[in-house]
Amino acid sequence: MRVALDAMGGDFAPLETVNGAIEAVKEFPCEVVLVGDKVKIEEVLHKCPGWEKLPISVHHASQTIDMHDQPGAAVRRKKDASVVVATQLVKEGKCDVVIAAGSTGAAVAAALFGLGRINGIERPTIATPMPNLTGTTILLDSGANVDSKPKHLVQSAIMGSIYAKYIMGVPNPRVGLLNIGEEDTKGNEQALATFPLLKQLRTINFIGNVEGRDIPKGTVDVVVCDGFVGNIVLKLSEGLASAIMQLIKDTISQSGILTKLASLMVLPALRSLKKKLDYAEYGGAPLLGVDGGFIICHGSSKAKAIKNAIRVAKEFAEQQVVDHIRENIVREGLAERDGE
Amino acid sequence: MRVALDAMGGDFAPLETVNGAIEAVKEFPCEVVLVGDKVKIEEVLHKCPGWEKLPISVHHASQTIDMHDQPGAAVRRKKDASVVVATQLVKEGKCDVVIAAGSTGAAVAAALFGLGRINGIERPTIATPMPNLTGTTILLDSGANVDSKPKHLVQSAIMGSIYAKYIMGVPNPRVGLLNIGEEDTKGNEQALATFPLLKQLRTINFIGNVEGRDIPKGTVDVVVCDGFVGNIVLKLSEGLASAIMQLIKDTISQSGILTKLASLMVLPALRSLKKKLDYAEYGGAPLLGVDGGFIICHGSSKAKAIKNAIRVAKEFAEQQVVDHIRENIVREGLAERDGE
Repeated sequence: MRVALDAMGGDFAPLETVNGAIEAVKEFPCEVVLVGDKVKIEEVLHKCPGWEKLPISVHHASQTIDMHDQPGAAVRRKKDASVVVATQLVKEGKCDVVIAAGSTGAAVAAALFGLGRINGIERPTIATPMPNLTGTTILLDSGANVDSKPKHLVQSAIMGSIYAKYIMGVPNPRVGLLNIGEEDTKGNEQALATFPLLKQLRTINFIGNVEGRDIPKGTVDVVVCDGFVGNIVLKLSEGLASAIMQLIKDTISQSGILTKLASLMVLPALRSLKKKLDYAEYGGAPLLGVDGGFIICHGSSKAKAIKNAIRVAKEFAEQQVVDHIRENIVREGLAERDGE
Repeated sequence: MRVALDAMGGDFAPLETVNGAIEAVKEFPCEVVLVGDKVKIEEVLHKCPGWEKLPISVHHASQTIDMHDQPGAAVRRKKDASVVVATQLVKEGKCDVVIAAGSTGAAVAAALFGLGRINGIERPTIATPMPNLTGTTILLDSGANVDSKPKHLVQSAIMGSIYAKYIMGVPNPRVGLLNIGEEDTKGNEQALATFPLLKQLRTINFIGNVEGRDIPKGTVDVVVCDGFVGNIVLKLSEGLASAIMQLIKDTISQSGILTKLASLMVLPALRSLKKKLDYAEYGGAPLLGVDGGFIICHGSSKAKAIKNAIRVAKEFAEQQVVDHIRENIVREGLAERDGE
């Protein structure tokens, strides 16, 4: 299993991307190709004695795409940009899956441009795992597309269900449509038009409308929504979780009586809680619907998040998620089988 | 200041509504008219010896509207329904403000039917206060309207700013448009079309686009969005806050070492945190844009929430929020002054 990692992407590249790769290959079996500025990457590698014996190699790429570049234009113009070259390695079959940690827009553009879409998928979507009380909810689309048509949400539902099944290990994932009430008649135009289409699908376990509170409760495994709503849900959850952690710390430190002792005893509990809420634990979110494995990381990813993204990427490729999507899209009659 | 309280509305009526009224009049100066089934209301009142000396009276209404009724039709058909009669008391000038705790749909219908809209407001919206790290954020619309047009969001922004100023006491409220990025060019069609309109307003302090994480952070006082998004934001926040509280309790109880002692010491801190996150503390959310004071409570409101809703209602009427809205709508050129 070979992972092509855009080593130049993200706020802390190449230091954290390279260190994440080193941690990953030490922890589980995989091979990482670091794509980017050879000199800068090797500078970091040389800080790790004996790295030459690890299953890590460097593939030089002379350009990078940053947050100021217009994604589509940059991908077309900068043919030797690290994210473009990494994608090309997968396209040519030299690697099995790409990991990108920089600009999300550039990553999506590079994936679309380099890999193309799976037949029958019009809008690839980003599926983000979110922690809940009992496990994980997959949220999609979490920001790739806004003003989606009902058919786009249908394609998302099929892909999200496959992701939950093969990567999260949920046997018969419960798929819900994010809405403002549980009744069939609730919602905006988009949700009202999407509901009956989801109900007709044969390859997913559609449980109907779900509400905002169902995400943290864990009563649903896959939540389908427009990228505008999904992005707000994701950022609100992250913000609220860290605000509440802050409040707990403040409250304990202000409580006065036996503060230090109490903190000592509660700290391990808080740390375990923080780990549960830590989005870095999940590492990357797959871009579903492109014709190849493509994992997107947060721009602020540190080594741990990169390591976990490599784990997700490896499972994504091993479990042949792309093939399962292709198969179910055909089974739902949304595309013809190759060669038919 | 006289408050007309629909005593029959909500899951725990009339027990909790009546008890909330008793608590309110004991705690701050106001007069409450309990509207609904006289026999049932007095049954609860008689459990409180000496209630006759309190500034509480009963106004009989023979019908109720429940969750199964179609709101619009029920309000037109049931002319003696408690929420319809309570609204009528305000329309006739016998009371200053209505409080409704039952079906939100019926409450909105009763308000529109009984009070009408302020000139220049096309869609009244529900403004919900949400706790944040430093105080409170007003979210609107939190679910009254979906598929809103940009002009509706503009009207919401004007009204929300007035609410934050006069009820929350924020001198120059920061108003933000909920979006998926801070840049002017981000968003769905609705947000992109709304942004320039908000920028032109003279009566509000528009700070631009805000993201989901800005709500709990407290970097914005008034967040404007479509009711579809707002409702999901609200329910997600409630669900996430209680999920995290649950996780904290579980983590502490599983930690093993000196569990009981630690719990004893942390419990007061947790309780104070819960209070901060408790939406019942705020009581009610005003329906802004109808031509009279109208406060809507959660259907599951208990006495404490009703008491706090009465406090909000009182301030709403005393601060003449409806008049301020009328004034600023004229100042923005969205309506003509009465008699012009």
